[in-house]
Amino acid sequence: MSENNVNAYLLLTCPDQNGIVAKITQFIYQSGGNIIALDEHVNQNQEFFSFRVVWNMKNSNIPASELHAAFEPLAKEFMAHWRIEFSGQKQRVAIFVSKYDHCLQEILWRYNMNEYEIEIPLIISNHPDLKHIADAHNIPYHVFPITKENKQEQEAKEIALLKEHDIDLVVLARYMQVLSPSFIEAYRNKIINIHHSFLPGFVGGNPYKQAYERGVKMIGATSHFVTEDLDEGPIIEQDIMRITHKDTIPDLIRKGRDLERIVLARALSYKAEHRIIVDGTRTIVFD
Amino acid sequence: MSENNVNAYLLLTCPDQNGIVAKITQFIYQSGGNIIALDEHVNQNQEFFSFRVVWNMKNSNIPASELHAAFEPLAKEFMAHWRIEFSGQKQRVAIFVSKYDHCLQEILWRYNMNEYEIEIPLIISNHPDLKHIADAHNIPYHVFPITKENKQEQEAKEIALLKEHDIDLVVLARYMQVLSPSFIEAYRNKIINIHHSFLPGFVGGNPYKQAYERGVKMIGATSHFVTEDLDEGPIIEQDIMRITHKDTIPDLIRKGRDLERIVLARALSYKAEHRIIVDGTRTIVFD
Amino acid sequence: MSENNVNAYLLLTCPDQNGIVAKITQFIYQSGGNIIALDEHVNQNQEFFSFRVVWNMKNSNIPASELHAAFEPLAKEFMAHWRIEFSGQKQRVAIFVSKYDHCLQEILWRYNMNEYEIEIPLIISNHPDLKHIADAHNIPYHVFPITKENKQEQEAKEIALLKEHDIDLVVLARYMQVLSPSFIEAYRNKIINIHHSFLPGFVGGNPYKQAYERGVKMIGATSHFVTEDLDEGPIIEQDIMRITHKDTIPDLIRKGRDLERIVLARALSYKAEHRIIVDGTRTIVFD
Amino acid sequence: MSENNVNAYLLLTCPDQNGIVAKITQFIYQSGGNIIALDEHVNQNQEFFSFRVVWNMKNSNIPASELHAAFEPLAKEFMAHWRIEFSGQKQRVAIFVSKYDHCLQEILWRYNMNEYEIEIPLIISNHPDLKHIADAHNIPYHVFPITKENKQEQEAKEIALLKEHDIDLVVLARYMQVLSPSFIEAYRNKIINIHHSFLPGFVGGNPYKQAYERGVKMIGATSHFVTEDLDEGPIIEQDIMRITHKDTIPDLIRKGRDLERIVLARALSYKAEHRIIVDGTRTIVFD
Repeated sequence: MSENNVNAYLLLTCPDQNGIVAKITQFIYQSGGNIIALDEHVNQNQEFFSFRVVWNMKNSNIPASELHAAFEPLAKEFMAHWRIEFSGQKQRVAIFVSKYDHCLQEILWRYNMNEYEIEIPLIISNHPDLKHIADAHNIPYHVFPITKENKQEQEAKEIALLKEHDIDLVVLARYMQVLSPSFIEAYRNKIINIHHSFLPGFVGGNPYKQAYERGVKMIGATSHFVTEDLDEGPIIEQDIMRITHKDTIPDLIRKGRDLERIVLARALSYKAEHRIIVDGTRTIVFD
Repeated sequence: MSENNVNAYLLLTCPDQNGIVAKITQFIYQSGGNIIALDEHVNQNQEFFSFRVVWNMKNSNIPASELHAAFEPLAKEFMAHWRIEFSGQKQRVAIFVSKYDHCLQEILWRYNMNEYEIEIPLIISNHPDLKHIADAHNIPYHVFPITKENKQEQEAKEIALLKEHDIDLVVLARYMQVLSPSFIEAYRNKIINIHHSFLPGFVGGNPYKQAYERGVKMIGATSHFVTEDLDEGPIIEQDIMRITHKDTIPDLIRKGRDLERIVLARALSYKAEHRIIVDGTRTIVFD
Repeated sequence: MSENNVNAYLLLTCPDQNGIVAKITQFIYQSGGNIIALDEHVNQNQEFFSFRVVWNMKNSNIPASELHAAFEPLAKEFMAHWRIEFSGQKQRVAIFVSKYDHCLQEILWRYNMNEYEIEIPLIISNHPDLKHIADAHNIPYHVFPITKENKQEQEAKEIALLKEHDIDLVVLARYMQVLSPSFIEAYRNKIINIHHSFLPGFVGGNPYKQAYERGVKMIGATSHFVTEDLDEGPIIEQDIMRITHKDTIPDLIRKGRDLERIVLARALSYKAEHRIIVDGTRTIVFD
Repeated sequence: MSENNVNAYLLLTCPDQNGIVAKITQFIYQSGGNIIALDEHVNQNQEFFSFRVVWNMKNSNIPASELHAAFEPLAKEFMAHWRIEFSGQKQRVAIFVSKYDHCLQEILWRYNMNEYEIEIPLIISNHPDLKHIADAHNIPYHVFPITKENKQEQEAKEIALLKEHDIDLVVLARYMQVLSPSFIEAYRNKIINIHHSFLPGFVGGNPYKQAYERGVKMIGATSHFVTEDLDEGPIIEQDIMRITHKDTIPDLIRKGRDLERIVLARALSYKAEHRIIVDGTRTIVFD
């Protein structure tokens, strides 16, 4: 069944109880699936159980198209939130940029190397500056200049465009605008931002200037889901690099670019590989 | 059943086939066990399946003392190598040292902090120098001076002592003697060494001098199981630190001590937590 | 002149102008000194010049005892703040502790290894718990229990004790009391603290709990000079380690101990090697 | 003197003696130069003194064009090897590539960001595959296919091309050919390579496969000057990343690309900033 020669990714959360893993893996076994990876996590205080299992469906006796329906009774028994994804079904990603190109270039380079199983049908910006990069990759580039007055209207157009293109994920690749709560609500846990500091340090504007003035010995970058509270969303990935008193603010900006690129790139890969479950203010990133 | 309020650790390897996870987790579920952690790994080329699962036995209907027998039929079905360990059953560890104290001190400090679930019934050395440290911790310290002539005889006495004390694991904490093949054979995959380089670079003697002369920009340390080939055993853990041209050989020795301490300490913790499976020249260290 | 076979350390700051390095190195050359290390830093915005130079005095025609007077005219010409230290003149360090022993043990271990050129004439605590460690190292251990009522009085006694012992540096090795402004004023830029977070993130109490709740992917530790603003003093050294969603708060506490030990140990070594100049809210740590 | 508003970089090595720093900084002071950075290093065993000093010439009374002649008498007094470089005089760099584009893309991206003070007049390859990238940056791309038979002849043409373009530095950005000794001799300490392992581990071909088979827990990359001994030249920069047993050889190749990019990029920046002095098998990389 060549149509079935794909991997299935089940991500599931539910109140903790005995037997969940046994019943789910039994389900997979009986369907003819071959488990490739599995991991669980119990947030003991909250009795919140999370599970990720990946299996190959080459010999599955359930077609991919019927898997959701077949699994549903078990999920109901566990009162679970869950979803099943399939390899080959590329997530559709919209990149938002402003004037800095480094994060965009990094993502597009990896996209061309096929590091991600994603599709990038469009790039959205509040400035025309990076259009040439989109052109070089034959990706449509839409400019929506934002002012205080037109913000609501422009965001409505952006959302319409995202809906039209069936966008699964929005990546803010140094997009220098704060999104409205209604935008965030429309893409809850589906908007990834890169902030150029080691959060929770240095929220808000000019984090490298803040870092210089505080005299830290390392700078960082943080990729997180966007929530209504600026720079407060669940963190997906962080990294740091060592600096010294010799580094000026321009040095920090230049060095920090390398961090921003790699941290956002990793966060996107975790999302593309269906590794992330959001648990309140925290993320579970399965290995 | 308070006697059962322990965690069971199953480590299992076998030829890969479908249904292993389903059947094992079903076994645990039916026994009343509550899974705390599980992870698998398939070495696809060799079709070598590895599995680690930890479950709580508080509500188990199988006493710990009968678990081995209860699981055996399933293990036979999979033609598995396997073992079950229990929390509270402390591994018995013998530390071997020579004259450097830093790795020994680090392990004893963590041992006193109860970071490890181990027992250290004895310390063995080819020199009397570190006896005062053993004394301060009330651990018997046995000196076996080694010469070319007496090596076989002394090692035989050491092995007898290890047997007498039911030693599960030997930790070479900068022990400056090469063990004989017969010693290694007697404790196959049960002897952990710390080598003061980033293996496979700088095998053998004086690795910091070698590192200085080669002009590397980072030094490392490697903890590995001891095999008959010097510094060639399966690697458990490694780490590095950055150095510069300013660092002299004494600087490297001093800085490297911090690496040796932390790398050996981590390797021992992985062993104490039953996380390691040896797969030929490689280790699987479950997360 | 064997009494002169020492290294001199000059640390100097002054308004930037041309010729400072030339004149100072000319002074050293004419005195017969052999430069071992030198580094400068100009904080361009503030025109604040910092300089560190180390030279060997074996062939010096100025005795160590007269060096200060000999250099003074040049320093006055530059309107400099400056000091000269000599190798062999061990800085006198008082360690303050409460109940956690890991930072104290780390410092004492390195002290015994002669990693630092310091003297530790006393350990001060608000609790008797760690006296056995001080005893094992034959270091007097003074207990000053602190309450809201007696704090001023007890601190006065502590300061008297520090003065009596000619203490140059106070190291707060997880000392769980906030020092009064008058104490801090008495030892301005001479009190080093270790805070168990990556500052400026998670100031104040329970930083590991804060880190867990914020869901960061790395934890850190920061060593800084103590000022009147809690956890706001000039940072000397920081480091981080990666964590995952699996780490509970006790895991963070346990793992973080390793960070606290190494970060405080490094900060102390920089101080002992006369590498640090405080520049407002920042430190210059010469390489 | 606007023509003089540049920074001068002096790199000097000579047998160690007293007064070198004093005399050189005095020379700079008298010329009206303002020192921006300076550092020295003495390789004590070999009595090999290295010095780097950077000064601004805005108020210099010696024109840049006459600086070399003006400094020469002092250099002769020290029997020094030395050179003076000026900001604004871009080093001319030739990039050699084969089929992998990641290191080339990284360098070109930074080149376009003006991170380097270099000029890239040409790219040379033994394959036509990456011509489109050179075209997109308007850099001439020369293809010299290499066989055992034509190697000497093709290299001669390459060298002629390098000479014609006044090339100062050759960067092998994953160039999959070993250069002949005569080529290396022609550009002694002027050819930078990136090797995809943490040298001295895994020299030669397929280092990621070697790393997988050895079971290391970290992979690395090393940038070094090319000498006649394969992968044995003086190391400029190294870095590593953590891997696990889950990583397959393709995973290592993919992850390792990120290391290769950053390590080669850093090595090139050190060269572009005149920070490197080669000392036998080691490099001094001034901070």
